[in-house]
Amino acid sequence: MYVVGHKIPDSDSICGAIALAYLKNQIGEAATAARLGELSPETAFILDKFGFEAPELKLSYAGENVYIVDHSEVTQAPDDIAQATIVGIVDHHKLGDLTTSTPLECWIRPVGCSNTIIKMMYDFYNVEIPKNIAGIMMCAILSDTVIFKSPTCTTADIKCVEALAEIAGIEDFKALGMEMFKVKSAVLGTPARDLVMRDFKDFNMNGNLVGIGQLEVIDLSVFDEIRADLEADIVKLKAEGNRHSVFLLLTDIMKEGSQILIASDDESLIERAYGVTPVEGKAWLDGVLSRKKQVVPPLQDAFA
Amino acid sequence: MYVVGHKIPDSDSICGAIALAYLKNQIGEAATAARLGELSPETAFILDKFGFEAPELKLSYAGENVYIVDHSEVTQAPDDIAQATIVGIVDHHKLGDLTTSTPLECWIRPVGCSNTIIKMMYDFYNVEIPKNIAGIMMCAILSDTVIFKSPTCTTADIKCVEALAEIAGIEDFKALGMEMFKVKSAVLGTPARDLVMRDFKDFNMNGNLVGIGQLEVIDLSVFDEIRADLEADIVKLKAEGNRHSVFLLLTDIMKEGSQILIASDDESLIERAYGVTPVEGKAWLDGVLSRKKQVVPPLQDAFA
Repeated sequence: MYVVGHKIPDSDSICGAIALAYLKNQIGEAATAARLGELSPETAFILDKFGFEAPELKLSYAGENVYIVDHSEVTQAPDDIAQATIVGIVDHHKLGDLTTSTPLECWIRPVGCSNTIIKMMYDFYNVEIPKNIAGIMMCAILSDTVIFKSPTCTTADIKCVEALAEIAGIEDFKALGMEMFKVKSAVLGTPARDLVMRDFKDFNMNGNLVGIGQLEVIDLSVFDEIRADLEADIVKLKAEGNRHSVFLLLTDIMKEGSQILIASDDESLIERAYGVTPVEGKAWLDGVLSRKKQVVPPLQDAFA
Repeated sequence: MYVVGHKIPDSDSICGAIALAYLKNQIGEAATAARLGELSPETAFILDKFGFEAPELKLSYAGENVYIVDHSEVTQAPDDIAQATIVGIVDHHKLGDLTTSTPLECWIRPVGCSNTIIKMMYDFYNVEIPKNIAGIMMCAILSDTVIFKSPTCTTADIKCVEALAEIAGIEDFKALGMEMFKVKSAVLGTPARDLVMRDFKDFNMNGNLVGIGQLEVIDLSVFDEIRADLEADIVKLKAEGNRHSVFLLLTDIMKEGSQILIASDDESLIERAYGVTPVEGKAWLDGVLSRKKQVVPPLQDAFA
């Protein structure tokens, strides 16, 4: 079987695929980690730090058994997923529109990161986690929970990071987390499209295709020189993909809030969803760190 | 929260709702077991044997938190499930078309019965199973796995029944299983429609509504006097519900096979799905005990 995360993979998708493939092999189910796209600088930093190569880049899965990591959405899955057999899903998002024609296993929990659930799977099967795999799992959780600041972070995530840090032999995991977010904050010199697409997800909202990107940095001033380029690019991206809307969240993890850049057929959605009035295609969403928990659900309600 | 199984509830749906509601209350999450329809004679026998009342009959869930048991299909869920919040799903079928707008927990495993998974949940939360709850869980698994004869039965189901039998203090669980199936086999004197609907599920197959009922007995001769009534009734049911097809499986658990009664816009589906040619709207499917594993997937492929 192949273990693969979502399109435009983030650290949870990549580290989760590696960690889960290792676990499956240990319990006698041959598995290969794969990915649907390029590594982000953050993920490259994590894999490099713990001595891993990138998983195999594989876009087509027709006829294969596939274990899905970190989503349950058709738009985020391989294009030919309907021709594959989904044998399992590990995820921490809302339940999406993937369906199967055969029974499968789903480990879905309302926690901050898929890797927290994968740690539960290791515990369930009583398999020891190697030091370097504990390291990448821990980093994925620190990334997804914004070092525990995100409202998606649960006690389970915190306990999991503490346990993994001990296995990996990392004393100051918060310092490592900040190092990761510094890597993430180095946005200058990168083309606008690459930044917009770095952590970008398409959603089907009441029949409308809505793309939402997010860039998490330790100081929004890094965007001062390139914000206009980003704004122009999401307008282009909206037209190219025939989307109803494209939003880009510029998240300040120290100030704990996000500036949302808006390209939409209906800007009033933002007012209805978040109770703020956009000015010149932008709005500040105070306290908003999580796309999954704070951005998607109110938007989905506004579309409904 | 309400814990509720599928429409036309079987023993897994009812016993699972009771067992899971108890577990949730033990871990500090207030929960009430509910049901979407009348008890089958088998389920009534089980509840009576272990001293339970039927869960509350409740059809509307708008505005409520709901934990779904034994399916993940819109057609099998409460009619107003879109106005409820699904907080969790425990299931052992193919992944259906239920979706959510918020993260949830899904305990879905490719095993023979939802109650086997609920036992895993008790183990995960380290909650002791009361004797009478162990009894109804055990009976649900014996029912769903046809006393371990069904191809859906896994090692996990067998081990789970053994553990639950010990907790419940039942020495000969196979004898209790046969007693249950004898209750199920008492079909004479029951109106045809009640029998057709006793364990009936609607599926969306490539846009077509397909209803499949199943009656499991210890000797098919019990149907000799009423087969013609059943055949006439599924033709009516098909027309009433605007269905593409209605099938009724008459399953002989001792001979280990099923006679399928057919009312369909396209009888050739049966040939394509199962490789047998129907004669006078009926066919014998040798070795077929499981709707989920042996009947639905080939039919779904035939529709695709």
